[in-house]
Amino acid sequence: MAVSDLRIASPKLGEPYLLTPGPLTTSYAVKQAMLKDWGSWDGDFRAMTAELRKRLLDLLGPGSDEFDCVPMQGSGTFAVEAMLASFIPKNGKVLVLANGAYGMRSVETLEYLGREHVVLNKGDYLPPRGEEVANILLEDPDITHVVAIHCETSSGILNPVEEISEVVYAAGRKLLIDSMSAFGAIPLEASQIRYEAMVSSANKCIEGVPGFGFIIARKDELEDARNNSHSLSLDVHAQWAHMNKSGQWRFTPPTHVVAAFLEALRAHELEGGVAGRGGRYKRNRDVMVAGMRELGFETLLDNRWLSPIIVTFFCPTDPNFVFDRFYELMKNKGFIIYPGKLTVVDSFRVGCIGQMDEHVMRNVVAAAREALEEMGVSDASPPAIALEERAKLAS
Amino acid sequence: MAVSDLRIASPKLGEPYLLTPGPLTTSYAVKQAMLKDWGSWDGDFRAMTAELRKRLLDLLGPGSDEFDCVPMQGSGTFAVEAMLASFIPKNGKVLVLANGAYGMRSVETLEYLGREHVVLNKGDYLPPRGEEVANILLEDPDITHVVAIHCETSSGILNPVEEISEVVYAAGRKLLIDSMSAFGAIPLEASQIRYEAMVSSANKCIEGVPGFGFIIARKDELEDARNNSHSLSLDVHAQWAHMNKSGQWRFTPPTHVVAAFLEALRAHELEGGVAGRGGRYKRNRDVMVAGMRELGFETLLDNRWLSPIIVTFFCPTDPNFVFDRFYELMKNKGFIIYPGKLTVVDSFRVGCIGQMDEHVMRNVVAAAREALEEMGVSDASPPAIALEERAKLAS
Repeated sequence: MAVSDLRIASPKLGEPYLLTPGPLTTSYAVKQAMLKDWGSWDGDFRAMTAELRKRLLDLLGPGSDEFDCVPMQGSGTFAVEAMLASFIPKNGKVLVLANGAYGMRSVETLEYLGREHVVLNKGDYLPPRGEEVANILLEDPDITHVVAIHCETSSGILNPVEEISEVVYAAGRKLLIDSMSAFGAIPLEASQIRYEAMVSSANKCIEGVPGFGFIIARKDELEDARNNSHSLSLDVHAQWAHMNKSGQWRFTPPTHVVAAFLEALRAHELEGGVAGRGGRYKRNRDVMVAGMRELGFETLLDNRWLSPIIVTFFCPTDPNFVFDRFYELMKNKGFIIYPGKLTVVDSFRVGCIGQMDEHVMRNVVAAAREALEEMGVSDASPPAIALEERAKLAS
Repeated sequence: MAVSDLRIASPKLGEPYLLTPGPLTTSYAVKQAMLKDWGSWDGDFRAMTAELRKRLLDLLGPGSDEFDCVPMQGSGTFAVEAMLASFIPKNGKVLVLANGAYGMRSVETLEYLGREHVVLNKGDYLPPRGEEVANILLEDPDITHVVAIHCETSSGILNPVEEISEVVYAAGRKLLIDSMSAFGAIPLEASQIRYEAMVSSANKCIEGVPGFGFIIARKDELEDARNNSHSLSLDVHAQWAHMNKSGQWRFTPPTHVVAAFLEALRAHELEGGVAGRGGRYKRNRDVMVAGMRELGFETLLDNRWLSPIIVTFFCPTDPNFVFDRFYELMKNKGFIIYPGKLTVVDSFRVGCIGQMDEHVMRNVVAAAREALEEMGVSDASPPAIALEERAKLAS
């Protein structure tokens, strides 16, 4: 998709861009696909469900025939819970690799589920590395499964899932990936990285609207998941078996959201699939980060760890900088940004995903410059503690 | 809302009406409300969530201030599971009043949850009556909660929840109501019937699009529900507490579906609320049933038990009648009907809910007449066993 097409597809004048990790700014065509009602039992809708599942599987590339795709109603967290409950047997033991809110949410979910687990908690943003994971697995032979977060949205870090996968399978364990905010823009090809199951949702890098998630899992894992789930609604095996038998969702699907997602999947293909989509997001990030650094803002992460999904910036130390004011000023200029989630230092986040290109990102930087001026912030640099914090990563 | 407005709001020519129990035919304005993206964290969307919760509560009339409304992502079944898990303590015991698929789904859910339960199973459609419920409660003092289905969509019967509520509270037990396909068209006023919690969803009588359900429960029950839930995602107490504190949904809401639902709630008020909406559905049912009976079709239920939501008809005994053919012929004429769910006799269902009025229902009957002619069915009367089946209800 050419840049000019993107600009045509951009939202109506006056509607702010969502520089958030999803819900995000979708194309008008995606939203227009919702201007119709479907009978969920009807053949037309069953065909839509089949196309959706096939298109998602195709994103795994060669080897995708060993997997199947199971959409699941609800938010992405519902799909993560469904994955954890369905693929980790009741007598399993889980190692969760956490470096932010989404890793800790998996831990909380396992507590609800009553599944035995241990946590490698790396704090706000430090990445879990292969060597330390290998050591934990060596010391604890009871661990059966490892849960990794692909892009930890709370800092924006892209975790090294390939090196994690290698050590997990070298130790004879199984990997489950929460690829919520990465899938569709960052490769997870079946031939390049091994895992049992992954999960993402409609309103992330495929650029649909929110309303369901999806699990992509090995067929033998789906078969073995029978009777594992704690929940009727979130039972991945039952949804999969029913869908394969009837072509229908087990319970009422969000029909309009599904229609929007199909339109989004077609646009994703036209843009060049995962490579094309990821390429645009990288340009978004590079243009935006360069511009923000020129204004004096500092990123939490070194370039090596910056995802093309969302970027965390430290709040300036200047007392004139008040985040709520900055948020409102940016919103009035047409950009909705996102608060930070760091525990040690104040921060905010700017998303790179959705129907936006580098031209939009230049306008984001221009808006930030104006907002700083209007707040009377002359120096956007962060407090010393922020830079000390960042230095931990380099060491 | 005048009939002429309804016709203006009807779907585009060529799009079939959904004579189904939801997803149903929504107004164009409801769908147009989805042509915008919202940030789920943003104040604009928090205001939409607040308005939605208030409008739903207002439908309970005087006494609604003792209740609160908790929207829940996913299909209606997700909200039912959330209600059962959150309000029935782990040491509770449940009596489920079942007369169809949705009653039995509650039983299945309780099995997943590991909650002790007994079932009054009335078969395909016979209504659970107050006296028999009172007797069961008298004989089993361990029962703490009764679960009733308001309109059992699998037959279309409107169950006598008022008389059930009376005996439940006379025996000092608690009532939970699955009002999925009834709420918004059949009264459940706080001053008229007592219950602890009820559940419905966006795509039923309020005429929104599918994507979330909602639980309306007494505030003291919501408070007591802490730590009851088996599921992070479906924890009603946690969703309620988070929403009251932050104004936000705990996990990503289906923003577009929420916007559509707000538009639907405003239209519901303009039509005269529950009374106005229910009145139109009753006219839809009366016109449609009278016309179908003229063609020789027989309803499963006597008039007394016919809901204004969906009506079950016996399939004609004539061998030229093939349901799949009838379905396709009706669809080609612009009407999507619904297969039956009776175990003893073949049947089909026709819904009365959604953006349709009596003029549309006359066209439904005309289409059925044409379809019978095209199939060469001269006699639409059912087999003798069907009428014997129905006689059970009269006795």
